Amino acid sequence: MSLLIVGTMAFDALETPFGKVDRIIGGSATYAAWAASNFTKSINQVSIVGGDFPQEEINALKDRGVAFEGVEVVPDGKSFFWSGRYHLDMNTRDSLITDLNVLAQFNPQIPESYQKSKYVMLGNLAPAVQISVLKQLKHKPELVIMDTMNFWMEIAMDELKKAIGMVDMLLVNDSEARELTGEYSLVKAARKIQKMGPRYLIIKKGEHGALLFHDDKIFSAPALPLEDVFDPTGAGDTFAGGFIGYLAYSGDLSFENMKAAVIIGSALASFCVEKFGPTRLKEINVTDIDNRVNEFVSLINFEIRKK
Amino acid sequence: MSLLIVGTMAFDALETPFGKVDRIIGGSATYAAWAASNFTKSINQVSIVGGDFPQEEINALKDRGVAFEGVEVVPDGKSFFWSGRYHLDMNTRDSLITDLNVLAQFNPQIPESYQKSKYVMLGNLAPAVQISVLKQLKHKPELVIMDTMNFWMEIAMDELKKAIGMVDMLLVNDSEARELTGEYSLVKAARKIQKMGPRYLIIKKGEHGALLFHDDKIFSAPALPLEDVFDPTGAGDTFAGGFIGYLAYSGDLSFENMKAAVIIGSALASFCVEKFGPTRLKEINVTDIDNRVNEFVSLINFEIRKK
Repeated sequence: MSLLIVGTMAFDALETPFGKVDRIIGGSATYAAWAASNFTKSINQVSIVGGDFPQEEINALKDRGVAFEGVEVVPDGKSFFWSGRYHLDMNTRDSLITDLNVLAQFNPQIPESYQKSKYVMLGNLAPAVQISVLKQLKHKPELVIMDTMNFWMEIAMDELKKAIGMVDMLLVNDSEARELTGEYSLVKAARKIQKMGPRYLIIKKGEHGALLFHDDKIFSAPALPLEDVFDPTGAGDTFAGGFIGYLAYSGDLSFENMKAAVIIGSALASFCVEKFGPTRLKEINVTDIDNRVNEFVSLINFEIRKK
Repeated sequence: MSLLIVGTMAFDALETPFGKVDRIIGGSATYAAWAASNFTKSINQVSIVGGDFPQEEINALKDRGVAFEGVEVVPDGKSFFWSGRYHLDMNTRDSLITDLNVLAQFNPQIPESYQKSKYVMLGNLAPAVQISVLKQLKHKPELVIMDTMNFWMEIAMDELKKAIGMVDMLLVNDSEARELTGEYSLVKAARKIQKMGPRYLIIKKGEHGALLFHDDKIFSAPALPLEDVFDPTGAGDTFAGGFIGYLAYSGDLSFENMKAAVIIGSALASFCVEKFGPTRLKEINVTDIDNRVNEFVSLINFEIRKK
């Protein structure tokens, strides 16, 4: 079933302890589309790029079934650019440059052909933009998930809470869940977030995995212990794209199947961090993903034998 | 099969965001014995206490099958005393007072009746004391596990590495694994530690669970997401005691069974933090532990259905 992805398509300059790249393709919608397109060939992309965005990158995604009718191209504009440097722990980073460029004028229009989208992923964007997208949808989707970041909690908390109240699932990392709720305990934070509206919540914990909450149920997914995290950029967007891409493919929104989708998302994210940008995501196929999922199974599988 | 536990028996004064206690029973060997005695009634305790250590605490452990022949009582001495204050995140704490008292003269003598011990847990102690215990053992045990802390890495690294080279398994937390090896990646740190001698390694990650390493195999155990961590004191010792107590009971040192033992240890630790000191450990029984283990199963259990 078709999946609507709203987010950035951008250039990143990245510096990690393992090296640097001056200009590589990035953006939440780019990572999400690469991840989700392993499962569904019906992706409706919504974003904005400048005339500098490479046509071959667009073509590569079109070849994977991604529709670009909702991607605005501003021929004279420049694409969103972000530059960051990661610390040794890879969990913290400094933003060096944030050039909004065409993103400053992003006012997404949902094409009529996208109105059949049953699944919606709102990448990290200004809450007002996320709300505008939801208001344009004529039919209630099966599932709307949204990402955000602490930046919006600091400058647009009211708007953010309004957006959160409109979605089925929120994805945040642990420090964002704490900042959003003022609760240190993630169990308490999750309960507060569920009261804000979303029936489902995923708390991402980076190298420590992720937690899925629904009603009183909790699922804990590990992260694969990796020799090296080469570049964590886009791991969260890749996780989200893999997660909802798998749900769109399977059409099963039971909690049991969501747990599987969390593992699928984690597997995709574990590939993402192996090379700079989305490089690794472009190389892998379904067999690679299956094998990686099996690594997750053996990582956590145990049995207590009764004597 | 019998289990030798070497460690401290002490008094703690604790302050957490949830309250404080001025004087409660503590020490690594105390927590480990309470945890292990759920599984084996043949525990050989080695420690040192002052005349101030309550006889009823000793009797309570004796009732659980813990032998005290190897516990030296110094009638005129005072027991080891530690006082600490936990920060809101419960992962960091300040040591306020550390009064070694009788621990300063701890020179454990292994009684002849303890020589049949097949399983050995060396709690966090000066590496020289840990080495002295191992040298007194006339028969090679089935499994020797040892705990330590960053303090010894800073003041006695050579001695510590010697001790590590003599044991089958090391238990450390993630920051200690990094400090010991100079590797940020836990996978790389684990490989370096395995080269130092131990065939097995457990890296404890607090609220993020634990990793078990052996050869090229890794097992990831979650921590139970808790509403509140009331007092984390002794959680690591409880984990270790539950882990080796279950192995001593089952007599099965396969990697598969060690994974089960890690879950058992995690379940015990999740009880420990629910009340101050070992209070909660004294209340629970095997049914409680079984139920808690089932919570771990549902926390991580998933199935990916093939379409």
